[in-house]
Amino acid sequence: MALTSGIKGVIPIAPTPFHADGTVDEVSLDRMTDFFLAAGIDGITILGQLGEAPKLDHQDAIAIARRVIRRANVPIIVGASAPGFAAMRSLVRDVMDLGAAGVMIAPPNTLRTDDQIVTYYRQAAEAIGTDVPFVLQDYPLTFSVVMTPGVIRRIVTENDSCVMLKHEDWPGLEKITTLRGFERDGSMRHVAILTGNGGLFLDFEMDRGADGANTGYAFPEMLVDVVRLAAAGKRDEAHDLFDAHLPYLLYEQPQGALGLAVRKYVLMRRGVLASDAQRKPGLSLSAEARAEVDYLLSRVARFDRRAQIAR
Amino acid sequence: MALTSGIKGVIPIAPTPFHADGTVDEVSLDRMTDFFLAAGIDGITILGQLGEAPKLDHQDAIAIARRVIRRANVPIIVGASAPGFAAMRSLVRDVMDLGAAGVMIAPPNTLRTDDQIVTYYRQAAEAIGTDVPFVLQDYPLTFSVVMTPGVIRRIVTENDSCVMLKHEDWPGLEKITTLRGFERDGSMRHVAILTGNGGLFLDFEMDRGADGANTGYAFPEMLVDVVRLAAAGKRDEAHDLFDAHLPYLLYEQPQGALGLAVRKYVLMRRGVLASDAQRKPGLSLSAEARAEVDYLLSRVARFDRRAQIAR
Amino acid sequence: MALTSGIKGVIPIAPTPFHADGTVDEVSLDRMTDFFLAAGIDGITILGQLGEAPKLDHQDAIAIARRVIRRANVPIIVGASAPGFAAMRSLVRDVMDLGAAGVMIAPPNTLRTDDQIVTYYRQAAEAIGTDVPFVLQDYPLTFSVVMTPGVIRRIVTENDSCVMLKHEDWPGLEKITTLRGFERDGSMRHVAILTGNGGLFLDFEMDRGADGANTGYAFPEMLVDVVRLAAAGKRDEAHDLFDAHLPYLLYEQPQGALGLAVRKYVLMRRGVLASDAQRKPGLSLSAEARAEVDYLLSRVARFDRRAQIAR
Amino acid sequence: MALTSGIKGVIPIAPTPFHADGTVDEVSLDRMTDFFLAAGIDGITILGQLGEAPKLDHQDAIAIARRVIRRANVPIIVGASAPGFAAMRSLVRDVMDLGAAGVMIAPPNTLRTDDQIVTYYRQAAEAIGTDVPFVLQDYPLTFSVVMTPGVIRRIVTENDSCVMLKHEDWPGLEKITTLRGFERDGSMRHVAILTGNGGLFLDFEMDRGADGANTGYAFPEMLVDVVRLAAAGKRDEAHDLFDAHLPYLLYEQPQGALGLAVRKYVLMRRGVLASDAQRKPGLSLSAEARAEVDYLLSRVARFDRRAQIAR
Repeated sequence: MALTSGIKGVIPIAPTPFHADGTVDEVSLDRMTDFFLAAGIDGITILGQLGEAPKLDHQDAIAIARRVIRRANVPIIVGASAPGFAAMRSLVRDVMDLGAAGVMIAPPNTLRTDDQIVTYYRQAAEAIGTDVPFVLQDYPLTFSVVMTPGVIRRIVTENDSCVMLKHEDWPGLEKITTLRGFERDGSMRHVAILTGNGGLFLDFEMDRGADGANTGYAFPEMLVDVVRLAAAGKRDEAHDLFDAHLPYLLYEQPQGALGLAVRKYVLMRRGVLASDAQRKPGLSLSAEARAEVDYLLSRVARFDRRAQIAR
Repeated sequence: MALTSGIKGVIPIAPTPFHADGTVDEVSLDRMTDFFLAAGIDGITILGQLGEAPKLDHQDAIAIARRVIRRANVPIIVGASAPGFAAMRSLVRDVMDLGAAGVMIAPPNTLRTDDQIVTYYRQAAEAIGTDVPFVLQDYPLTFSVVMTPGVIRRIVTENDSCVMLKHEDWPGLEKITTLRGFERDGSMRHVAILTGNGGLFLDFEMDRGADGANTGYAFPEMLVDVVRLAAAGKRDEAHDLFDAHLPYLLYEQPQGALGLAVRKYVLMRRGVLASDAQRKPGLSLSAEARAEVDYLLSRVARFDRRAQIAR
Repeated sequence: MALTSGIKGVIPIAPTPFHADGTVDEVSLDRMTDFFLAAGIDGITILGQLGEAPKLDHQDAIAIARRVIRRANVPIIVGASAPGFAAMRSLVRDVMDLGAAGVMIAPPNTLRTDDQIVTYYRQAAEAIGTDVPFVLQDYPLTFSVVMTPGVIRRIVTENDSCVMLKHEDWPGLEKITTLRGFERDGSMRHVAILTGNGGLFLDFEMDRGADGANTGYAFPEMLVDVVRLAAAGKRDEAHDLFDAHLPYLLYEQPQGALGLAVRKYVLMRRGVLASDAQRKPGLSLSAEARAEVDYLLSRVARFDRRAQIAR
Repeated sequence: MALTSGIKGVIPIAPTPFHADGTVDEVSLDRMTDFFLAAGIDGITILGQLGEAPKLDHQDAIAIARRVIRRANVPIIVGASAPGFAAMRSLVRDVMDLGAAGVMIAPPNTLRTDDQIVTYYRQAAEAIGTDVPFVLQDYPLTFSVVMTPGVIRRIVTENDSCVMLKHEDWPGLEKITTLRGFERDGSMRHVAILTGNGGLFLDFEMDRGADGANTGYAFPEMLVDVVRLAAAGKRDEAHDLFDAHLPYLLYEQPQGALGLAVRKYVLMRRGVLASDAQRKPGLSLSAEARAEVDYLLSRVARFDRRAQIAR
């Protein structure tokens, strides 16, 4: 089930469930996988930054990948960003053997010039094998690497195995429009564009031509509905649903470990995870923050009853 | 009318109105000043980054400051960030002579260590004169300078003339709570904390102890109402109003020149500015973006009729 | 005396002489100008970063420029880097009216992509007037802006008024070779390449095709001799002289204010400056550092008696 | 043979020898180990940035560590910088089991505030085990992390297992003086300070109180002699030897992969390595650069015959 440029829909970025002692919680991992599938998603990305991948050793990572790939009959994308190509190649080879659909590669934050970025992806594609489909992650706020549409076009053109863009530039609507324009004028082949940023701009990103969401919101069923409504041309309905979630979605979004803490807390409240523990070093929510999240969820639930959480 | 640590409420960050040919539009400047006053604001910040200050020469800047200070009977804060202390001192001396209430100083993006940041503000306070009240701007996403609460406490403690924090860390709620804790435990004197980030987190910032907003949303009357409602303990009403604006507020917020383009466009649509022109180099909105803004405003207007804009 | 792409030789970056109280020392300024002329230099760059330009207000800057331009019958290049085009245009107009030969423009450290860099220089050239010759400063270690040879070619090609490159990439020899290759293959017109980095790589830079040095070493006569010897094909002699100075040159070079402190101290020891004072905020040398510099100079003097300094 | 704060002398940073096909060249690895020992070094650092560690997978890394540790009867320090604590812990545990003396940890380039840096080292020390001696690497030019002397003191004080500072701030002489002052005034316990930067400032670093060099110059015997002469109070002789090497040492030093390319080329010329190949992605020297290196070596050899290389 190789990832192709035809992928569409919602691909959640999965957190990694831990017990309070820092060991991987496999029961919660299975439950979370089922939860995603029940939400109607089209794939799952595991072992990303949000999945606390840098805190996992190779054995942990492989065990998680094996478990999710076996359980879910959808494409599984594995985060493969690494400081060196040796570690990247080693992980990619192992997870592809296990049946992963593709991998996601973020740029190291030392890249500056257009040529440096293009060269990096050429070398990475060679290192992992040009038969391995990969997702290009464009996330300047976090990685400090700025890719123009022209650079993305060069990467796509040079590397047949680049099949999808995880778009999370900010603000990034014009970039989607420009890239779709490249497709229309024939200067770039089609790649899937799924968007990140916690879903914060999903409504208009769909209007601009995105194919879906590749992000980790704690209510993936909302992302699925927004993508479906947008695809069906029901713009007002899509925005109504999106706007009802937005105050909480914004709270969950903030960069860094706090967003993950909120998300794990809510997934725990929803019964998906047994614990909101992060492997060390990690952040936990203050009492004030938990109360704020509870308040926001109660407000979302006035519109979308799925956000109702028993106290 | 010197700025003091007792300042509260809403202090908009004013854009600078230009004619299409790039000259300052004084009629719009006056109209905008009146518009802010009518909205119930408690001060105005001019010549900030958002006011396109780097594109203004000294004469332009002084003329704008004079005009706003004469017209508005509220404290006027003037952006005084500059690459060197000579230019900073020169501007500050001139605008304080004109009757400015204080100045705002952002950190140069080359500062790294705690000591470098503290030293910079000590030198800046000396350079402008320790009798000039100043606002400390904490905006890591844009300036790449990260100030811990402890560093802010050191700056406040060393510099009596530091009377206000423009807080726009992100996520920043815990920072407000920590700083207010410093006040309660007696380790830091009180300074006003007004928040930025386009107002994106104003609702919870007020809950955490902020004194108001110091940001440039195109509907300052909403900010005024949210601050008032929050101060009156009407939390649900504050959030209801805030949430109704949030989808558009988020769209206006994005970093960089695009947020300013949106804001000027809406202020033009509202009849405040004659033109949404930016002085070169500046961005203008695409047709898609204008349509998206119009759509968002129509949705805000369902809840808050003040956002109704004649087509 | 407009700067052209035919410029060759040594153009020192001049420090700004101050009295201990921070006022400009005009007598030392004149003496330094004469000192440079006597050393056989081919131009002088004033008001650069090393000239403490950010600490000078407009009046100071203009007064210095007027004084040096009147006194020296060589091309005077004026540092015009500024955070905004308004301040840049204002300074450039004034110094060109006074008879400056051209200006030097460094990139703001927020530029990332190739297009951002190229766009910035296009806008800067328009802002100052396309009739004003300018020097492109390429100094990634200090400005965090990385320009590939291709980007430099785009800037040169787009802007007829770009006549010289101040090359201080590090390591940068291959860049000179590549740029000279662009000239040979006809893809880029000729621009002068003068090198910086305190002269640290001048010997091989000349071998690679540089036209001279544009840097502030305290012994400009050595730079003049090295450039002359290299141009005359006397490679071993050039290296012998250069190597004799290298231990001290390296000590003077280090980035930041310390290099300036060393240089001013030695220029004071040489009788050029009355004081090594920097305008605040500035660094002064520790007793250990002064002793180290004295020791190094005594060692240079064993080979080059011009470095002999009376105790 | 655990690393202690009493370590002194020269600890080269070892490159990793590769065959042209990218496999590890074990014969050259053994020869290089013997070469270092013959030069009179006091330890060896392997698997650092310069050792192309990010291009090695875990098996490669372990094999190299085992081989060098078995062969050399001096303390072996292993580079353990990693993006996450899981990979770091895994490598550290394995190499300590093999008999490594300690590990070296560089800060990730995302750290900004003093507290972030101190926290990182506390977490790293816990992650690897507080019984594992570690070297703190302070290299702001490359890592963009700026540690004040006060921050270094905090790290040393918090972590008993921090036994050595690899000092490569630039310019950094005053930092050594300050840290040694901390020892004298009793505010910081003694840690060894060995210096990097390719040895570029070794002469004066020894004068300021450094304990030796921890860097990868291709003539380690020169470093050994300079450290010995400096320790014996033979300052002029130390400088004479150092200065004779300086022109080539500077050429070898430049940041990035080019310095490594020069060093491997010279080690090949010296008969230590069979090939100057780098594992992909790597740089190779241009013909011009090779000629320049040869020229420089011939000049060094006029003073130090050990630099004589058969053509």
